[in-house]
Amino acid sequence: MTIPTWHGGAQAVVTLTFDVDAETPILAAGRRYADHLTTMSHQAYGPDVGVPRILELLADLDVPATFFVPGWVAEQRPGLAATIQDRGHEVAHHSYSHRAPTTLTAEDERADFERALEVFVAQGIEIHGHRAALWEATRTTLDLVAEHGLAYDSSLMGDDRPYLLDVGGRSVVELPVHWSLDDWEQYAYLPSPQIGTVIESPRKVLELWRAELDAMRHYRCLLNLCLHPFLSGRPSRLLALRDLIEYAQSCGDITFARCRDLAAAARSDRALSPRTPPAVVPDPSVYPG
Amino acid sequence: MTIPTWHGGAQAVVTLTFDVDAETPILAAGRRYADHLTTMSHQAYGPDVGVPRILELLADLDVPATFFVPGWVAEQRPGLAATIQDRGHEVAHHSYSHRAPTTLTAEDERADFERALEVFVAQGIEIHGHRAALWEATRTTLDLVAEHGLAYDSSLMGDDRPYLLDVGGRSVVELPVHWSLDDWEQYAYLPSPQIGTVIESPRKVLELWRAELDAMRHYRCLLNLCLHPFLSGRPSRLLALRDLIEYAQSCGDITFARCRDLAAAARSDRALSPRTPPAVVPDPSVYPG
Amino acid sequence: MTIPTWHGGAQAVVTLTFDVDAETPILAAGRRYADHLTTMSHQAYGPDVGVPRILELLADLDVPATFFVPGWVAEQRPGLAATIQDRGHEVAHHSYSHRAPTTLTAEDERADFERALEVFVAQGIEIHGHRAALWEATRTTLDLVAEHGLAYDSSLMGDDRPYLLDVGGRSVVELPVHWSLDDWEQYAYLPSPQIGTVIESPRKVLELWRAELDAMRHYRCLLNLCLHPFLSGRPSRLLALRDLIEYAQSCGDITFARCRDLAAAARSDRALSPRTPPAVVPDPSVYPG
Amino acid sequence: MTIPTWHGGAQAVVTLTFDVDAETPILAAGRRYADHLTTMSHQAYGPDVGVPRILELLADLDVPATFFVPGWVAEQRPGLAATIQDRGHEVAHHSYSHRAPTTLTAEDERADFERALEVFVAQGIEIHGHRAALWEATRTTLDLVAEHGLAYDSSLMGDDRPYLLDVGGRSVVELPVHWSLDDWEQYAYLPSPQIGTVIESPRKVLELWRAELDAMRHYRCLLNLCLHPFLSGRPSRLLALRDLIEYAQSCGDITFARCRDLAAAARSDRALSPRTPPAVVPDPSVYPG
Repeated sequence: MTIPTWHGGAQAVVTLTFDVDAETPILAAGRRYADHLTTMSHQAYGPDVGVPRILELLADLDVPATFFVPGWVAEQRPGLAATIQDRGHEVAHHSYSHRAPTTLTAEDERADFERALEVFVAQGIEIHGHRAALWEATRTTLDLVAEHGLAYDSSLMGDDRPYLLDVGGRSVVELPVHWSLDDWEQYAYLPSPQIGTVIESPRKVLELWRAELDAMRHYRCLLNLCLHPFLSGRPSRLLALRDLIEYAQSCGDITFARCRDLAAAARSDRALSPRTPPAVVPDPSVYPG
Repeated sequence: MTIPTWHGGAQAVVTLTFDVDAETPILAAGRRYADHLTTMSHQAYGPDVGVPRILELLADLDVPATFFVPGWVAEQRPGLAATIQDRGHEVAHHSYSHRAPTTLTAEDERADFERALEVFVAQGIEIHGHRAALWEATRTTLDLVAEHGLAYDSSLMGDDRPYLLDVGGRSVVELPVHWSLDDWEQYAYLPSPQIGTVIESPRKVLELWRAELDAMRHYRCLLNLCLHPFLSGRPSRLLALRDLIEYAQSCGDITFARCRDLAAAARSDRALSPRTPPAVVPDPSVYPG
Repeated sequence: MTIPTWHGGAQAVVTLTFDVDAETPILAAGRRYADHLTTMSHQAYGPDVGVPRILELLADLDVPATFFVPGWVAEQRPGLAATIQDRGHEVAHHSYSHRAPTTLTAEDERADFERALEVFVAQGIEIHGHRAALWEATRTTLDLVAEHGLAYDSSLMGDDRPYLLDVGGRSVVELPVHWSLDDWEQYAYLPSPQIGTVIESPRKVLELWRAELDAMRHYRCLLNLCLHPFLSGRPSRLLALRDLIEYAQSCGDITFARCRDLAAAARSDRALSPRTPPAVVPDPSVYPG
Repeated sequence: MTIPTWHGGAQAVVTLTFDVDAETPILAAGRRYADHLTTMSHQAYGPDVGVPRILELLADLDVPATFFVPGWVAEQRPGLAATIQDRGHEVAHHSYSHRAPTTLTAEDERADFERALEVFVAQGIEIHGHRAALWEATRTTLDLVAEHGLAYDSSLMGDDRPYLLDVGGRSVVELPVHWSLDDWEQYAYLPSPQIGTVIESPRKVLELWRAELDAMRHYRCLLNLCLHPFLSGRPSRLLALRDLIEYAQSCGDITFARCRDLAAAARSDRALSPRTPPAVVPDPSVYPG
């Protein structure tokens, strides 16, 4: 009999995740940008051109992935989420509007969160997990994930392996992310609104992620890669992603998983004990600002 | 009989485009910069030193190009546009003043657009296409392009192949651009006004664009390269450009085209069906900001 | 008989230093960030995941190090400083709250400085040296270091070898730092609060530091490397650090030292004559701003 | 008989220039920074540690250089300018206070300019040329250079070869600079005041400048390299500079010159015809901002 582990014996687990943000991060920065046609088209490239190519690439290489989709995007492009799900990939919750939870009241965050769930229910999409917009989770975020019975969250950075969060007595699997495993920091460039200032070569990005993958095999970690179709859907970046996946496959000791499947494996791993969410209470006399 | 396609059988099409902005982006950032002599000379290098070297390079390698010239620049340097056209290259519309359309009223944008056309008419320059200043097109921009009967626009980012736009019933060819195929993001540095903060090595830039070219051959795309004579006219950058062009020529399956010729080919390609311009109407209750 | 020198005959001395800032730089930027759970978890990764791996790496390679710990961090994580000290490494003073001294009144800086000392006394931690938060030392900082009889400071940049500071008649060893030998500039990325914008590849960072190490052997200098567990504790960065240490060990002419031991050696080096701290008094008619 | 040319038959001319700014750019950003001891020491490293090493390197390789020194720096460190001149290098005018001319009234710029001249006269330093602080020259800057009979200015960017400026009937040689040939953009990092955000590897910088040198040999240009002792005086950067100089020497067709000697050669080159300084007068109805 095998003892269940989150990694299932692999030296590293890779979750390929695609945040299909489309226009939402831009509109969250200012409604007026809807009239900036170049910027809108820059974002629309993601679902319109990037996603079909990504689906083709994943099919070619036979690897599963998870697509975090804002409810607004699913609503605006009715067939999108279903197409992804039909290909065997997971569609997950990525807020409704992609406004940062840290900028919302608890009431507004709840309304936004639940509106997205309603969209997915209406479209027949099964939701098992959540990722906070802009990776700006609050205590409310975790409470909503737990209250709605989702299996996992993927917004915190407290480790580089899956861990369990005790959220008011309910257990939530955390699949941690990190800035260094996100394509935004490497590829995003837009002056207005300013969302990034440097465009790196895919060769540098491949070097960066391949080095992380090798090191994660050494430390037995989760490579939770976060990609945006409006960025990584561009031709040379897709080929670099193909190289990365093929390299991982050639290692022989790496598993690819959908987030929901990894979360289930983590939940059955008895070695993972629950942690509490960050709860820092700074003294105003020390931190007055 | 051959069926007309936008690519004419090539695996990728390259449009070399040069935005001859000279002093205009700086003056648009503030009229007072006219008194900053170093900055003015930094910009003047483009038409004064960069353009002659670029024309020589293009002649040497026998490739056609398109020069997007603001009307103000054509006016200030009377022989410039004609010299470019006489060498067999295309001169195209790049606004009059290089102020971003998204910062202008519709009336001001129209006045600016039409003033540039008048300059080109007066100088005997044939105008077939347009590129919005700062890649900040509005709905008005597209309306003006269509209303004045221009064949193409080159300001949007909705694809990496030519596409057709239905602009109020008129069809406009869009030759999409992208930040990653622009030299500004790689080379521009100026603290006041701040127009860029990092100066990359031409070797990195060559690597970036060569990788994109190879990937575009894989996906059959348009490499619409945007260069600025005040940046790419510097010696080491010109030699990197020469390397890129020679590499493309050595591939054997890549075509170089002026934008007007590519637009004509795209218009005759029956496989391209018209799309509507971006028309996002965000709900103020979702995006209040 | 050997004449004592700060370098003890080595061509270069390496002090591996780890600033265990945890949440403090973020809270110093704004108390409200305590509610940003992703950001808090990003910082907690340092002591929770990074430090154990770093201790393991140091033990593996048998090299000593110095950990600069804010008093607040030592207080919040009671066993942390003792664990580090028990492994044979040095724990040093890094303020209480990690607020920049240049933003505090002399009274507030004194209170913050002494509160940290009290924490370390209570935990049985021996303190021999100090590093200013954010490398923003003031004259008060040096006065406090001298008044409390600490052997060294490590916050200035006036040289790349140890030097002596005459602080009101007391002698303090300065172990100078530099931005180019800090992992923050290479790896830190966080949009809110903005603490960095570019994520470099560990390969580039290894190249940068290895070149500095080679050049420092040429000039006989101190490589005072500053690392942050929340940044350099990530897998691929740790392996790059391992490569750097192994390279240094393979040179055969490099010594690794704790800061306190290097400070003692520097104090016994008769060739080092005391310098005065920077004391620039600008004329307001020349520098009115 | 040989016809005099600015290049004297070389394929490229290299002017190694060092801007010995010390504390001045920081004080110009705010007098309060005098109390930021780390920052002051960061700047003092330039004249205190960097300059002696640079002089040693230049002697080793037997190449001449030009040191642009603000009058305030010469005054604060009395022997500095004389030491440089005594080694056979040129000391040139770099303002008194390093405040940007574009931020001063014409009267204040004149007072600053002439105060520096007085310092150099008092110290027995011969002044032949000038470089504007922050490369922010105004029309007043050029008038002052011409009025005081200096042979050259080195602040504009209108070309990459020496050229002549007609300044109110007087002829001034311009030795143009460029951001890409400055170490500041590659190495400067300082958060407060913010003077730079990215620290590049010397290997990248060597690649950048070597590529420019090769391309300048192709186009026969002036490589007017601008270095700052507080930046390029660091060990690994000095060794990269040594590599660059040795590479240039190995080419066999490159000359090193002091700016004053190059200016004299340029003045005797009959092929150089005078140009007028930039004089852009923008229409407020086009550029209202």
